[in-house]
Amino acid sequence: MSIPLPPARAAWRNRLYQIIFEADTPAGKAFDVGLIVCILVSVALVMLDSVQDIHTRFHQELWVAEWVVTVLFSAEYLARLLSAPRPWAYARSLFGVIDLLSILPTLLMLLFPELAYLLTIRALRLLRIFRIFKLGRYIAETQIILTALRQSRQKITVFLTAVCVLVVMMGSTLYVVEGPANGFTSIPKSMYWAIVTITTVGYGDIAPKTPLGQLVASLAMISGYAIIAVPTGIVSSELIRGERPRAPTRPVTCPHCLLEGHQDDARFCRACGAALLSAAPALSVAHKTQRSGPG
Amino acid sequence: MSIPLPPARAAWRNRLYQIIFEADTPAGKAFDVGLIVCILVSVALVMLDSVQDIHTRFHQELWVAEWVVTVLFSAEYLARLLSAPRPWAYARSLFGVIDLLSILPTLLMLLFPELAYLLTIRALRLLRIFRIFKLGRYIAETQIILTALRQSRQKITVFLTAVCVLVVMMGSTLYVVEGPANGFTSIPKSMYWAIVTITTVGYGDIAPKTPLGQLVASLAMISGYAIIAVPTGIVSSELIRGERPRAPTRPVTCPHCLLEGHQDDARFCRACGAALLSAAPALSVAHKTQRSGPG
Amino acid sequence: MSIPLPPARAAWRNRLYQIIFEADTPAGKAFDVGLIVCILVSVALVMLDSVQDIHTRFHQELWVAEWVVTVLFSAEYLARLLSAPRPWAYARSLFGVIDLLSILPTLLMLLFPELAYLLTIRALRLLRIFRIFKLGRYIAETQIILTALRQSRQKITVFLTAVCVLVVMMGSTLYVVEGPANGFTSIPKSMYWAIVTITTVGYGDIAPKTPLGQLVASLAMISGYAIIAVPTGIVSSELIRGERPRAPTRPVTCPHCLLEGHQDDARFCRACGAALLSAAPALSVAHKTQRSGPG
Amino acid sequence: MSIPLPPARAAWRNRLYQIIFEADTPAGKAFDVGLIVCILVSVALVMLDSVQDIHTRFHQELWVAEWVVTVLFSAEYLARLLSAPRPWAYARSLFGVIDLLSILPTLLMLLFPELAYLLTIRALRLLRIFRIFKLGRYIAETQIILTALRQSRQKITVFLTAVCVLVVMMGSTLYVVEGPANGFTSIPKSMYWAIVTITTVGYGDIAPKTPLGQLVASLAMISGYAIIAVPTGIVSSELIRGERPRAPTRPVTCPHCLLEGHQDDARFCRACGAALLSAAPALSVAHKTQRSGPG
Repeated sequence: MSIPLPPARAAWRNRLYQIIFEADTPAGKAFDVGLIVCILVSVALVMLDSVQDIHTRFHQELWVAEWVVTVLFSAEYLARLLSAPRPWAYARSLFGVIDLLSILPTLLMLLFPELAYLLTIRALRLLRIFRIFKLGRYIAETQIILTALRQSRQKITVFLTAVCVLVVMMGSTLYVVEGPANGFTSIPKSMYWAIVTITTVGYGDIAPKTPLGQLVASLAMISGYAIIAVPTGIVSSELIRGERPRAPTRPVTCPHCLLEGHQDDARFCRACGAALLSAAPALSVAHKTQRSGPG
Repeated sequence: MSIPLPPARAAWRNRLYQIIFEADTPAGKAFDVGLIVCILVSVALVMLDSVQDIHTRFHQELWVAEWVVTVLFSAEYLARLLSAPRPWAYARSLFGVIDLLSILPTLLMLLFPELAYLLTIRALRLLRIFRIFKLGRYIAETQIILTALRQSRQKITVFLTAVCVLVVMMGSTLYVVEGPANGFTSIPKSMYWAIVTITTVGYGDIAPKTPLGQLVASLAMISGYAIIAVPTGIVSSELIRGERPRAPTRPVTCPHCLLEGHQDDARFCRACGAALLSAAPALSVAHKTQRSGPG
Repeated sequence: MSIPLPPARAAWRNRLYQIIFEADTPAGKAFDVGLIVCILVSVALVMLDSVQDIHTRFHQELWVAEWVVTVLFSAEYLARLLSAPRPWAYARSLFGVIDLLSILPTLLMLLFPELAYLLTIRALRLLRIFRIFKLGRYIAETQIILTALRQSRQKITVFLTAVCVLVVMMGSTLYVVEGPANGFTSIPKSMYWAIVTITTVGYGDIAPKTPLGQLVASLAMISGYAIIAVPTGIVSSELIRGERPRAPTRPVTCPHCLLEGHQDDARFCRACGAALLSAAPALSVAHKTQRSGPG
Repeated sequence: MSIPLPPARAAWRNRLYQIIFEADTPAGKAFDVGLIVCILVSVALVMLDSVQDIHTRFHQELWVAEWVVTVLFSAEYLARLLSAPRPWAYARSLFGVIDLLSILPTLLMLLFPELAYLLTIRALRLLRIFRIFKLGRYIAETQIILTALRQSRQKITVFLTAVCVLVVMMGSTLYVVEGPANGFTSIPKSMYWAIVTITTVGYGDIAPKTPLGQLVASLAMISGYAIIAVPTGIVSSELIRGERPRAPTRPVTCPHCLLEGHQDDARFCRACGAALLSAAPALSVAHKTQRSGPG
């Protein structure tokens, strides 16, 4: 079943819209899989190009492949602009900007070759591709994690402020105790050491050498050891509270406001009320009057 | 009490089956303990053989011990093939393949000596031996952990994708900021550094040396610090939800489909309906009509 | 609406009190934001001053800026003393001491230049500034974390004692096993190594080199790996239990005892009964007799 | 109120018993505090003695202090043997053995000077001293943690077995991939590297140098990153489940079986029925017939 769009829109634009923006038709899924492959290939190209040996030997091939990828991404960007009911809304949305950013660098690269590494920003586009992996459930999962993070935002701010104060105090103390002779050449560098220590990364490029410095550092490690328990506990408790059953959702994008995560039987966008293009079967009266039993 | 098998099966094959595949008779437990010792000894042999001093001094003894272990494992493999009601199903099962893989290398070693280290794949066989340790309860525990991991599979995928995107972005940034002169010789190597850093391993073989690189690395560490809280929270919340009382199970293997973890009073496989060889006492009518009270 | 203070207090002192000690008037918020900026600038000054290059080139400018900050903080300290209803109570409170400590060093610096780094103790003042970020909610969040830590104090003591015993035992063992030749020159230094290892920091400046030492260290790492789960579990379970809805609070400070975190409709301090200066609207009789319905 | 002991016991032995074995009289608390100080001093002595400078300069003083401590501990051991109603039960109990072990080394040290470092085993005695810190509550806290660990024993076994299998597989793989030329000189040494990596300690004394080795190591780190979530989740969920209100306990030790943790109103040992020496007030009939209301 198909819901008519405004008469000004040609049928091929609707069809293109369903292929590109939605993921519940075979063509839409194929498009998403192809896009994922394309993104992974383009990221791999940039990585390989940074290896000196490969760059020297396959420079020509990598250059060709890069332009093929860029042409494909440019075509995708134009197709999205063409098929989106409100092109300007798409162009200003987060993913519209990312799509643009992922073709701009190659064009700019002709002028500024040192920008080549910015191409890996395409990795960000992987986030959009979650849709196909999860068909409705993954979006809900992502939202649970994001909701947990958002609800514990205030606790995390308190926690990060405490970590910052601890880092400043620790770094200054070690700068005074160890001094430039032992590698603690300035307070910012000592704070770098404090962060490396408190997060338990521990490179060892800077390490206290005097007995007093080692004593203070030991206290800092034990503190970091105790502190790492706090964010874990925060996220755990939020996740445990946040897990309530959710209605299943469909991978449909609102053609008007580009909102995703609509419920299975949604025919209209829950945010702006626009008609969804690949709509669910109309809710029959029987379905609507159906009520859950007492069990 | 003993349930008759198809007439084509000799009694000694049933007896062999009970000893080898099951763990609730004294002979079965003894067989399992002997197998565990054998596996640990064979793994220790491979380890010791890799130490240069021991290899030089005890080469002869290690070679003999290796062949003794291989002959024992080959005999076990043949006995399993002989006693399994459907030998082909066993040979194609996960543990059938592992059993075969654990004797193949020594045979191949005559031809390709450099394969000797693959022998430690026998360690995988330890997983099978869980049966004897736990007699019904450990299997349930493993299943709780696996169920928790499986139920949080989607969240873990989201989480790992986010980690990958972060690693790509961090590695590229540090490659640009630090450059080959400070050890960041390529993006893949910078990504290796990013993984070493975000997981808080921190070898220190590659570490940022410029102030800007240290600043970016500090942000990466704090991020990794916060991110490590997410999988912990996920597993915790799944484990807390997943802990419901379970029916006790017996260490009996279905002779037909090799499924394990049958309930205490099971006489037939819950998956394929085949009769279990060392069956529970027949459920009496009284037991069957027994009903739980209103409490 | 405004509650009269004792007649001896001039109106400008009340006004000053509301600006400096409270955060729910526009002037009060502006003062807090200005104070935060001032603190961050002063901390940054101390950090930059410790970098040799910057110290050499901008010595004059940094010196001027330091004195500007100190004069501002001195003015703030005097204003707080003047406006506080009980100046002596303020001077002896935690933040009164911190406020004094943050201006003392610069004055002392004229006499003892090596004290300059103590100035970063101003970072502690950031804790007081939480008020403006959170307007009632952040205080509750901080209190949840502090309450969780306080309630698990006994478990944490038990845990830290166990860690200390483990560190002593591990350090002594490695001192005996590895000896001064491999960097374990004394038991205190070996204990430093044990702390670096158990907290998974792992600098690598001291590492076991003999096979036996590496075996013992491996056991210590696995133990530390298991032990780190304990404080996390403690904090998680406390946080999960501690999360109950709390009444909203206002960023008002009691003029008598300097207690914060009063409820939204409080007109008198819950601890000492003194009238709050920027009081809530008087509770009407209707409000007081209002009762929650059966729902 | 005092409960009579068997006539054979002299009154001074009862008094000595209450001072040494119990902690709810002023004398008992003073004895425990003195013992803690003594233990800490003796541990500090051993530590200081291992520092070369201090050993050279204060050798005489340390030697005297060591003998003073040993004489005090010997006196305490004899007093415990004398006052315990069943001396042989005390001598064979865990703390009886520790008490003996903490005086033996100094005596043996005359014969074997290299045993001096074993003296730190006295740190274990700190565990016994928990009584005074916590007066009934800490014992309950320790028991919650121990109960949580005990109840998750099976999951921890499954988890540790999985870690061992992973360590064996990772170590062997890196041994094959990197080889002796890059520091992976044998499988045991490679397993040491694997443990250092998976626990995120990351000394950096051994680190993969080939691209393939770094790729495999990266996968190991991500795995370890995910795996560390499992024990944390296990302990968290056990702690959350294990927190039920407990009856308050008194720091009284049963004179017959040395069991601790008796309830507040206990007059007889809950394990062996022996009368407790410093008994609670007799339960009055009114108290016994008192019943909790319907609320």
